[in-house]
Amino acid sequence: MVNRQHTRILILGGGFGGVYTAMTLERLLKRDPSVEIGLVSKENYLVFQPLLPEVISGSIGILDTITSIRRLCPNTSLYNREVISIDPKKKIVTTSSGFQPRPYQLEYDHLVIALGNITSFVGQPGIQEHALPFKYLGDALVLRNHIIHALEEADIETNPELRRAILTFVVAGGGFSGVESVAELNDYVRAGARSFRNVNPEEIRVVLLHAGPLILPELPEDLARFAQRLLQRRGVEIHLNTRLAGATAEYALLDGGERIPTKTLVSTVPSGPNPLVAALPCKKENGRIVVNEYLEVPDYAGVWAAGDCAWVLDRKTGHPCPPTAQHAIREARCLAKNIVATMRGHPKQAFAYRAIGKLGALGRRSAVAEILGVKLSGVVPWLLWRAIYLMKMPGLDRKIRVATDWFLDLILPPDIVQIKTEKSGGIGREHFEPGEVIFRQGDRGDRLYVIVDGEVEVVKEEFGKGEIALARRGPGECFGEMALVSDTPRTATVRSRTSLNVLTMHREAFHGLFAHFPLLRSLFQQLIEQRIHVPVQFKGEHHAETGQD
Amino acid sequence: MVNRQHTRILILGGGFGGVYTAMTLERLLKRDPSVEIGLVSKENYLVFQPLLPEVISGSIGILDTITSIRRLCPNTSLYNREVISIDPKKKIVTTSSGFQPRPYQLEYDHLVIALGNITSFVGQPGIQEHALPFKYLGDALVLRNHIIHALEEADIETNPELRRAILTFVVAGGGFSGVESVAELNDYVRAGARSFRNVNPEEIRVVLLHAGPLILPELPEDLARFAQRLLQRRGVEIHLNTRLAGATAEYALLDGGERIPTKTLVSTVPSGPNPLVAALPCKKENGRIVVNEYLEVPDYAGVWAAGDCAWVLDRKTGHPCPPTAQHAIREARCLAKNIVATMRGHPKQAFAYRAIGKLGALGRRSAVAEILGVKLSGVVPWLLWRAIYLMKMPGLDRKIRVATDWFLDLILPPDIVQIKTEKSGGIGREHFEPGEVIFRQGDRGDRLYVIVDGEVEVVKEEFGKGEIALARRGPGECFGEMALVSDTPRTATVRSRTSLNVLTMHREAFHGLFAHFPLLRSLFQQLIEQRIHVPVQFKGEHHAETGQD
Repeated sequence: MVNRQHTRILILGGGFGGVYTAMTLERLLKRDPSVEIGLVSKENYLVFQPLLPEVISGSIGILDTITSIRRLCPNTSLYNREVISIDPKKKIVTTSSGFQPRPYQLEYDHLVIALGNITSFVGQPGIQEHALPFKYLGDALVLRNHIIHALEEADIETNPELRRAILTFVVAGGGFSGVESVAELNDYVRAGARSFRNVNPEEIRVVLLHAGPLILPELPEDLARFAQRLLQRRGVEIHLNTRLAGATAEYALLDGGERIPTKTLVSTVPSGPNPLVAALPCKKENGRIVVNEYLEVPDYAGVWAAGDCAWVLDRKTGHPCPPTAQHAIREARCLAKNIVATMRGHPKQAFAYRAIGKLGALGRRSAVAEILGVKLSGVVPWLLWRAIYLMKMPGLDRKIRVATDWFLDLILPPDIVQIKTEKSGGIGREHFEPGEVIFRQGDRGDRLYVIVDGEVEVVKEEFGKGEIALARRGPGECFGEMALVSDTPRTATVRSRTSLNVLTMHREAFHGLFAHFPLLRSLFQQLIEQRIHVPVQFKGEHHAETGQD
Repeated sequence: MVNRQHTRILILGGGFGGVYTAMTLERLLKRDPSVEIGLVSKENYLVFQPLLPEVISGSIGILDTITSIRRLCPNTSLYNREVISIDPKKKIVTTSSGFQPRPYQLEYDHLVIALGNITSFVGQPGIQEHALPFKYLGDALVLRNHIIHALEEADIETNPELRRAILTFVVAGGGFSGVESVAELNDYVRAGARSFRNVNPEEIRVVLLHAGPLILPELPEDLARFAQRLLQRRGVEIHLNTRLAGATAEYALLDGGERIPTKTLVSTVPSGPNPLVAALPCKKENGRIVVNEYLEVPDYAGVWAAGDCAWVLDRKTGHPCPPTAQHAIREARCLAKNIVATMRGHPKQAFAYRAIGKLGALGRRSAVAEILGVKLSGVVPWLLWRAIYLMKMPGLDRKIRVATDWFLDLILPPDIVQIKTEKSGGIGREHFEPGEVIFRQGDRGDRLYVIVDGEVEVVKEEFGKGEIALARRGPGECFGEMALVSDTPRTATVRSRTSLNVLTMHREAFHGLFAHFPLLRSLFQQLIEQRIHVPVQFKGEHHAETGQD
């Protein structure tokens, strides 16, 4: 497939940076047969990020915030794989495997790195395990289904404390992404709750946590104040000067030590450098690849970078360009032109762009905007917001679909169907703060726990005698195996003594392995016999050796 | 919540039978405060099954084939849980747990069992593991994404044999469900392929397997022949008098021994009784609950059954009613009236219904139908099909959304975006026929295998020497651990010696457990040392005890 006389341009990343580079190259090169354009993306679509929050409320169809990359750049070879490694010396990129477990390698002459950044919760205990991220289409779908699940559970839950936690929704981060998400979430949960007989709208609590003194730091103060008042009027509780410090399955932990009991915690704040970018030997600032004014990576001929993973200096202000779609698109266009100029021996063009404006949607029929210095708030910028994004959305079919969605959304009630596509039943991770109950005597045994770090105590509640301490377990030890092995309710209560991280293996996975893997079975048999000091008869075990039946 | 003076009617199942029972009860009882209606359903929506095949091609939006149960029966308490057990003696139903691992119990005075049947592939080796079912909304989504994944992979695959397998799509079952699915699949894959640069439409093979001499046995012969010819003309290869006998990850196995290499096998055929129904002590026929003419379960006062899980005799023909939506809806209505009659001491009404007609869609603008004895084929029944289903679809909002979808589908190209929501990385199952390669020396090690039954041989390919047999492994033994533990490519090839079933544990799950669970680590350490007779240095293991560094 690879013709050595061709110039091979390989683009990594299917976001705005990568896709607009490919689109611009196609336009400039006009099917030049001597150039091959390849694009590696782990999804075969471009997500139109600004509309992602609308997926929560379903005011836009699930598929309508995304556009097929193949349709946008029909003359580019799309590799729908994940990038595994980049070797800038040998000029080889390795991708993940497809139906067969074989590495797939791509060679290049020009490499465009547009891998974006990733959601990273490192350093905040429990956030990785218990907060929902909000960055990809999949995240929006998961959040949407989680909200409906919470309403479903609240509808039949009688324990008032648990009801309160289930009906509390916390969003961390008061920037654009957090504000737009909390606005959509608030509208959706309050409208959807009307269809639930036993959920009183006054029970619903939607909380926004923001580290600064005023939300939307990207906007002028008066617009931010307008947004803040509007959200509050619509029922969003805003905690300013408050950071999310941690989380468990039961609550959000604030930096002042306060705990907000919740089953739905969304974190829109942290993003870290892509590990692939981190592994590159080139110069970086804040984890982003430093490029020159032509968007080339210095010292690596033929390597370019654009978008959120690139450190592009605004020549007028001396500040780096913000990680927004507007900038990624302009960088991509400039970069594509410079690659073509390089190939043709023409002079390159320095990157220069000033953002036209900023727009933030606040849910039903409201927005704030600053466009060319003019400040707007209320329904006018909201209409503007919709008009601009409809215009910007790539692909005519998507424009039509989104316009139709918006029209239907005006006249139809919100969807409250819950699509469960993810199977549980694998290996998971959980975090507990000190002194928390991990499971209670009498509960159904649904998983095995392995301690990664921290310590637990095992206690038995005996009627009339109170608690009897049975044992302590530390790193590398497991607990909770008894109820799984013998298929009985939990025989003891387990509590964390310290901050605790555990690995969990769900019932189904455990039973699958346990039934068919004698090595593992005898391991647990020994373990349990050691612990309870009597021989164990296992459920489902075949006693081929015993003479009796 | 439970008032003892009330009559509690509990309905199990959220299909047509269950939901229409609740709807009819609400209509008849007019908010009677002395009656509580409860419905347990594992999904909070009713799937409009006849439109499910259209989800494959996306001619209907993902959410538009389903309707919120809460909106359909607003005065019914919906328990969005799975039924775990039914105790007809104590009159208690136990459901799965929600956010907390506690069993949830519901008492009843009247119980309506409308649990349907389930997909069951027992007895056909490999079908459970490698065929895609087609019954629930989730199945339709999985199939849709799988088809796009296949096109994506075919677009970059150069091995001609593998390309052929990737571009072969096999549907087993020539009844209504199989025919409608294969028609939509065929239309979709051929239209979608146009956006893939390296996929030639002539490479695509769509195969329908049918056990009988003619597809659509539910319809008169001439209509079935029309359908058969039409599908063949559109490129569907129809294998008559052919049964699916088994499957592996590489091919579909036919009962004559023929193998069709494919990566996409859909089975619409087998359905078995719901295990909950099977566990009930009442009388059954073919796994369905025998009811009297009033749809009561004899000998169990207050227990009723309707829909696919009920054995209802047609009094005119003496045959059981077929498991269709038409019948389930009529049974539900009759059953609801009889519950109300019983409560009020009125006479009950015997069930009687004759189906008005049969309709089968054949993809773009074609259908076959027999309505009140009149046979129709082509575009007229297709328009009729759409009109009837639009009319029958419950809920005005869904009618509007479906009508809009159909309109947009006429003018816009099909969607080819692939939504990946499922995470791999857990515990899986696979089947191999004798003599197959499970993995090859040099492959990337992506999973550990545990043998459930069967035997494998481990061989090493040495350059110039050919194959050297290293070992054999049998039930309960594992293989493939080496490449995972040391993070190197596979050091040997493993082949099945017999028919083989294995449990797999994916790389990520293995590494999670391995890194944090010393018991497991030492187990594999011992195992590998035994196998290769030298001490093993483990990747990622900390040597706290060694003095050197």
